[in-house]
Amino acid sequence: MAPHQTRLRARYAETDQMGVVHHAVYLVWLEAARVEYCRAAGFDYGAMEREDGIGIAVVETHCRYVYPTRFDDEVVIETRLEAASPRLVRFAYQLRRAADDRLLATAETKHIFCNRDMRPVRLPPKYWSLFGIPRGAGLPTP
Amino acid sequence: MAPHQTRLRARYAETDQMGVVHHAVYLVWLEAARVEYCRAAGFDYGAMEREDGIGIAVVETHCRYVYPTRFDDEVVIETRLEAASPRLVRFAYQLRRAADDRLLATAETKHIFCNRDMRPVRLPPKYWSLFGIPRGAGLPTP
Amino acid sequence: MAPHQTRLRARYAETDQMGVVHHAVYLVWLEAARVEYCRAAGFDYGAMEREDGIGIAVVETHCRYVYPTRFDDEVVIETRLEAASPRLVRFAYQLRRAADDRLLATAETKHIFCNRDMRPVRLPPKYWSLFGIPRGAGLPTP
Amino acid sequence: MAPHQTRLRARYAETDQMGVVHHAVYLVWLEAARVEYCRAAGFDYGAMEREDGIGIAVVETHCRYVYPTRFDDEVVIETRLEAASPRLVRFAYQLRRAADDRLLATAETKHIFCNRDMRPVRLPPKYWSLFGIPRGAGLPTP
Repeated sequence: MAPHQTRLRARYAETDQMGVVHHAVYLVWLEAARVEYCRAAGFDYGAMEREDGIGIAVVETHCRYVYPTRFDDEVVIETRLEAASPRLVRFAYQLRRAADDRLLATAETKHIFCNRDMRPVRLPPKYWSLFGIPRGAGLPTP
Repeated sequence: MAPHQTRLRARYAETDQMGVVHHAVYLVWLEAARVEYCRAAGFDYGAMEREDGIGIAVVETHCRYVYPTRFDDEVVIETRLEAASPRLVRFAYQLRRAADDRLLATAETKHIFCNRDMRPVRLPPKYWSLFGIPRGAGLPTP
Repeated sequence: MAPHQTRLRARYAETDQMGVVHHAVYLVWLEAARVEYCRAAGFDYGAMEREDGIGIAVVETHCRYVYPTRFDDEVVIETRLEAASPRLVRFAYQLRRAADDRLLATAETKHIFCNRDMRPVRLPPKYWSLFGIPRGAGLPTP
Repeated sequence: MAPHQTRLRARYAETDQMGVVHHAVYLVWLEAARVEYCRAAGFDYGAMEREDGIGIAVVETHCRYVYPTRFDDEVVIETRLEAASPRLVRFAYQLRRAADDRLLATAETKHIFCNRDMRPVRLPPKYWSLFGIPRGAGLPTP
């Protein structure tokens, strides 16, 4: 799927006493952007968790904070699927201020599929196409 | 049980751009204080949820903010069980700044016991004494 | 101003292990709804804080949780200005699930105007009309 | 300074519906650990911000999530100053479950010193020794 754009506004509760959005909040925003990415890709994250007992656990986050985000700034998050296999997914993000397209942050996150006990599992094939995983992926080569 | 005191420190992430702890954070602190209250009463909240499938859902919160809490302030939360029945529990709280005993906030919370589907249930009798609920509570009077 | 409606979606980070939105999050949502209320009333909250050094401090919150909100639920918050004077403002809220209009929670919040040192101040008259405060409010009666 | 250990307990509000602590919370914990590190090093973070108008802005975070943290787990965070100059500081962290020393996560954060307008500044020399910065650091070599 092409990169997907999500918009949100910085909430007052998300600022800290430095007068800018707290750096931990960006991870919450990235997650909101992933959920919207999945929705746009025709993929209901909540349903997969509920019906198939499969969640997507974050195993790595990396974020570079380029310019401070202020209260009430409108932020555009561009989300791109970087890589996907039946075991792993990686996303990359750019956060920009809507008003002037100023780059606020860049980030990457890495995820594994897991069951209700948080153990790694293979993504069922019915979901593969949504992540652009080719049929036969992850099979032992003959 | 007698009122119980919990101590914590205001985190930087808990402040907002007004330079004080954000008001929503107080509810998180009250919850941390309830957990410590329960632990002191010999009651393992996590185990009840895990083993008996019984949670304590918040149905009402009421908080009055008296004086601002600042980053790194040490806060003492006094938690008092106000009322308890097999269906309902009410707690009351006073938050004070440790340095000078200054009153920061007062609050009350009301809770019901619920199962994994978030439906109201009666607390199993084995837990009653921990909440000071007398045997026979909630029975129809003859 | 007439009641104002804000829409938002429950974020994954806002849920807790009971599988529902954590009760402290509702206060964050109420605040987001107040900001949108103010914007719709022609009032820029951030600018007042920045230019006039006047903030709106929360002095009381009261929330009743009627039905659990789940991840990804779309929520409609109806915000109503209950009362306003040059010193105090009160808002009331109803939170409903967008899908079926189910009532999720009701709440009220009380606020005072304060300066950068968090001391109570009177709202400058230029802002009165935005809060529906009549000219002459708060003056000693002859 | 030698590595410093901070202890905290996972709060209920910090869990998500997967039944584990949400990944964004780890960044809040790292910050709490840095504050304790600074306190142990004889350095009052709040005072520097208040008196000298100098803050420490996060410019990069990187976190690997190794094993899920559960509600009420006691967590030990070991914080180590990795590098420091008058412009930049880097910290590294290991998070372990207190009960059995199980590794939960590793992380690094990078920071710059900044003024109240969030512009980069050099750390005043009086603070250098606290960060182990040698006298003469950052000077042009002859």
